Amino acid sequence: MNLRFSIDEAVQKLLPVAEKDKIQTVWDRHKDQQPQCGFGKMGICCRICWKGPCRVDPFGKGAQRGICGADAHTIVARNLIRGIAAGAAAHSDHGRHIALTMREVGKGNAPAYTIKDEEKLKRIAQRLGIDWEGKSIRELTKEVADTSLEDYSRQDSKVPCRWAELTMTEERAAKLKQWGVMPHNIDATVAEIMSRTHVGCDADPVNILLGGVKGAVADYTGMYISTELSDALFGTPAPTVTEANLGVIKEDAINIAVHGHNPLLSEVVCDAAAMLNDLAKQAGAPGGFNIVGVCCTGNEVMVRHGVPLATNYLSQEMPILTGALEAMVVDVQCIMPSLGAIAQCFHTELITTMSTTKIPGATHVQFDKENAVESARKILELAVEAYQRRDPKRVNIPQVKEKAIVGFSAEAVIGALSQLDAHDPLQPLLDNIVNGNIQGICLFAGCNSTNTLQDRSFVELAKGLAAHNVLLLATGCGAGALAKHGLMTQEATLAYAGDGLKAVLTAIGQANGLNGPLPLVLHMGSCVDNTRAVSVAVAIAQKLGVDLDRLPLVASAPEAMSEKAVAIGTWAVALGLPTHLGTVPQVLGSQVVTEVLTEKIKDITGGYFIVETDPEEAAKKLFAVIQEKRAGLNL
Amino acid sequence: MNLRFSIDEAVQKLLPVAEKDKIQTVWDRHKDQQPQCGFGKMGICCRICWKGPCRVDPFGKGAQRGICGADAHTIVARNLIRGIAAGAAAHSDHGRHIALTMREVGKGNAPAYTIKDEEKLKRIAQRLGIDWEGKSIRELTKEVADTSLEDYSRQDSKVPCRWAELTMTEERAAKLKQWGVMPHNIDATVAEIMSRTHVGCDADPVNILLGGVKGAVADYTGMYISTELSDALFGTPAPTVTEANLGVIKEDAINIAVHGHNPLLSEVVCDAAAMLNDLAKQAGAPGGFNIVGVCCTGNEVMVRHGVPLATNYLSQEMPILTGALEAMVVDVQCIMPSLGAIAQCFHTELITTMSTTKIPGATHVQFDKENAVESARKILELAVEAYQRRDPKRVNIPQVKEKAIVGFSAEAVIGALSQLDAHDPLQPLLDNIVNGNIQGICLFAGCNSTNTLQDRSFVELAKGLAAHNVLLLATGCGAGALAKHGLMTQEATLAYAGDGLKAVLTAIGQANGLNGPLPLVLHMGSCVDNTRAVSVAVAIAQKLGVDLDRLPLVASAPEAMSEKAVAIGTWAVALGLPTHLGTVPQVLGSQVVTEVLTEKIKDITGGYFIVETDPEEAAKKLFAVIQEKRAGLNL
Repeated sequence: MNLRFSIDEAVQKLLPVAEKDKIQTVWDRHKDQQPQCGFGKMGICCRICWKGPCRVDPFGKGAQRGICGADAHTIVARNLIRGIAAGAAAHSDHGRHIALTMREVGKGNAPAYTIKDEEKLKRIAQRLGIDWEGKSIRELTKEVADTSLEDYSRQDSKVPCRWAELTMTEERAAKLKQWGVMPHNIDATVAEIMSRTHVGCDADPVNILLGGVKGAVADYTGMYISTELSDALFGTPAPTVTEANLGVIKEDAINIAVHGHNPLLSEVVCDAAAMLNDLAKQAGAPGGFNIVGVCCTGNEVMVRHGVPLATNYLSQEMPILTGALEAMVVDVQCIMPSLGAIAQCFHTELITTMSTTKIPGATHVQFDKENAVESARKILELAVEAYQRRDPKRVNIPQVKEKAIVGFSAEAVIGALSQLDAHDPLQPLLDNIVNGNIQGICLFAGCNSTNTLQDRSFVELAKGLAAHNVLLLATGCGAGALAKHGLMTQEATLAYAGDGLKAVLTAIGQANGLNGPLPLVLHMGSCVDNTRAVSVAVAIAQKLGVDLDRLPLVASAPEAMSEKAVAIGTWAVALGLPTHLGTVPQVLGSQVVTEVLTEKIKDITGGYFIVETDPEEAAKKLFAVIQEKRAGLNL
Repeated sequence: MNLRFSIDEAVQKLLPVAEKDKIQTVWDRHKDQQPQCGFGKMGICCRICWKGPCRVDPFGKGAQRGICGADAHTIVARNLIRGIAAGAAAHSDHGRHIALTMREVGKGNAPAYTIKDEEKLKRIAQRLGIDWEGKSIRELTKEVADTSLEDYSRQDSKVPCRWAELTMTEERAAKLKQWGVMPHNIDATVAEIMSRTHVGCDADPVNILLGGVKGAVADYTGMYISTELSDALFGTPAPTVTEANLGVIKEDAINIAVHGHNPLLSEVVCDAAAMLNDLAKQAGAPGGFNIVGVCCTGNEVMVRHGVPLATNYLSQEMPILTGALEAMVVDVQCIMPSLGAIAQCFHTELITTMSTTKIPGATHVQFDKENAVESARKILELAVEAYQRRDPKRVNIPQVKEKAIVGFSAEAVIGALSQLDAHDPLQPLLDNIVNGNIQGICLFAGCNSTNTLQDRSFVELAKGLAAHNVLLLATGCGAGALAKHGLMTQEATLAYAGDGLKAVLTAIGQANGLNGPLPLVLHMGSCVDNTRAVSVAVAIAQKLGVDLDRLPLVASAPEAMSEKAVAIGTWAVALGLPTHLGTVPQVLGSQVVTEVLTEKIKDITGGYFIVETDPEEAAKKLFAVIQEKRAGLNL
């Protein structure tokens, strides 16, 4: 097997197709970009004003300051926090979109949506301090939406974002306030970062980084809103069995991939496809409509409805190369602009749906919460039309797929544990952490990157940590990788878990009537859903009476790439988590910034970044951190 | 005279001091940065995700797409609008700061501030549709502040920012809505830009640019709020006589420069200095405290109180080099980080005051609206201490300064015109535009840049256009340049104005008892005050019954450098103004973006960018545009 680019067998099978058809893939473009600019890689290129661009000589011989006088530390820190601002903006725009839709549901103006999980809505209301007794679901829906939108609009900087303050330990919230990094308003915090990094503003690298941490906590806030309100609208994920990898594309069906991040459209597309399945059959596809997921829109519908996942970020071009994909429907974030050109080499309709995300070569079907059903129908019709153009000779679906048990929301985890102890579900988990059956917990998150062999680090790290009895959670493209490679199965638990972990996962699985263990890795959702892991961690911390940084809990983003990942990693560190990056962050041009992020911040938040590109070494380091944390708790 | 860097004689006199003391100035750093990165200059370097940096080969031989598939057009457009977002964020943060302070004034919580211009407050209330009859000034103050803050917090995307909608022609507001570029919320618009430019979002260059235009209109909104609310708080500028250039620093005084952009602190410093002047005299400085301005905080106090301007952006290091500056007090924006190091070579205290703008080497005196007076006092004390350390042998104040008549707010312009026609003040202006005495109007705005000879283009363009009877307005560092070079004097009018313009300026001057003409260039305020010119233009357009793009009105930013300038230029174009840039915008790597900005957008908004680095050519081009606009009105 050719392992130049990816360990994904399906990708290996399709790369020759791309080569034969002279289609450039992400890996070709990566090669074409070599060598990449070293100044940019190190973060010491500044393009913030038109006197520039400026760059600092990392060898100390040439210019040490930009034209304005900014040195490497200032430049690196500014570049980094602008990335955090973009990440926070992206996640929070997603959250806002959900909240605004929910408000319309509350007003009765969004007929395509209802509250599918009323209990979750009530739990949210309770958490936000909203009295729900005697209120109708619609009233409560509007009130929850309005209260959430206050975190986007509050003008009193002394009042923290409610979704931040009320979702972490009290101690952590107090610390964030003390450090001046607790946001009062998500949008204002994004704007503050853009403002303070304007030419001639903040030049103190540590002060700049603190601004970035505040932005990261704003990111956390927007993410929390996204996940929780989505659960109320679309249902809270519960364990479900599905499949992952390109083999989920069916030759006899009209295949539609939903790609991007926001469930607002994909949920309606799934509903419409089920309702209008006859349309597909009438068009000659006996398999009807087959919805498959890509990237995190894929994860959203996977964890909620068991929709199979075709692939994750880096291989998003591959579903088109199967020659059997009628439509790829995209919303926002992590959608390669290359899809436009590649879709045009096939019969595939690339369909953009959001006014702020258009792509040359795509057909735009504007999606709004008011016309969701019509848009979904239009998309299905475009897919049916495309199906007529499918060239059977070009169909080439790699028969590669793995079973995946997914849908482990915090509620699902607690639910499963409650079968062991209905009155105190967390107790069995704590007991097993204390007795060492479970050494600690690792959350896999983040993207894919061309700077690594696709998926490899996720798989190796997971196997390495599982063997040492570390409980594994995953979201986003990390979860996609682990699902594609069969690590979300009971078989994987039997094959790779250490004895302690295996015993615990088996006990829970048996108690839940699974006739075997839980899967080795628990799929918690899309990349916006990382707060699900936080809510479990906070519950543990509260039960133990310690803050988050004391727990044997680590995070790992072995292929971190996007600005969202930068923001997530930063709030993980702010919450006290040692956080592994398997790609090198673009900050090495500043010793100050590098030291703050990898060492000094530990003294403040308890969290810090661990940069290690070798997955075997990374597993060792993370396990050592877990041991250190256990020792700190006298375990 | 050595004209390598600047045409400013005071700069010429101090550069040898820098050289002798081995102090790096902005021009040394500019030299050290040569050659600058061509990819960055052309806008075709992308650092939006950590797969990159990527760059497009402008010669078409190497990579034409980044790793994600973004081409040059996408990359250039994204980089550009992120700059607009930063500009909008910076201006709007300023506006928010003023509005929040005003709200506290309304609540009675900000003892250092009062409403100094109650009539302006009422005019604002009227414009915003707030009924002021029967309300106390404090009630009205709070209501105006709250209504303004709604433009930062509104969650209904169908309701436009009030400060945008109500300050332009109805026709223009309708057009902006139609194009989808009318913001409903400033912060949300900044966040939207950051979100849509995240990896894998908007890839359509024209759609991206429209997002940028929306960001620019958000910038306009925040700027309008900044200016108008500042007028209510600190007084609306009225003509006053003062001086400009380094000669305003006094050897026998304790010299304090106020630098940055926000009048909130500098106003209180001015008040405190007047009140505590004896402190300085007791410390041995017979001249007392001498407050001088730098950059746009300088312009703020110059147009409101006649505080002399020491210098503008590019030469901001020079006041320290005089050896006679005790303190440089900075707030936000355009403050060179180099000041920290340079101040340490002298006795000067560099004092930062805002939590989001700290500088290594500076003393931080936190300034909040609640403790404004204490902060101002502390600053004065630091200056007194520094004065004890002044080394008389190092004092070297260039005896270069020019008289400047400044303070031409829109109200002041109308006020001056009303002496010709009390009932219809605009009529004399219109009559003179119609009869050709005034051919058109040019607003000089924007920064200084090391890419040009400092101040030269402003001066040459002003002289060139004045000779052709173009009425000249100026703000920001453009105004600073023109003031330093003596073009805000009656003598300049007599020397450089064409006969028609001279006659009009003389008639207005005589009617106002000036015993001569108005100055050649009317100083309207700091760079955040460009909306003052818009309000005059809107009044003219409304009187003529045409939209703004029909007027013989142009804008020029011959040394545009900051992201704020990018945002301002873009809204000027959105409002319909042909807008000259004398520095080359970093977009040339995309033909699509370049053509849209310099040509195609003309068919939509009526405005467009004119890029011309030669001031003589630029004057010809702008005059030709004015002729074209006159022809369009049959003049």
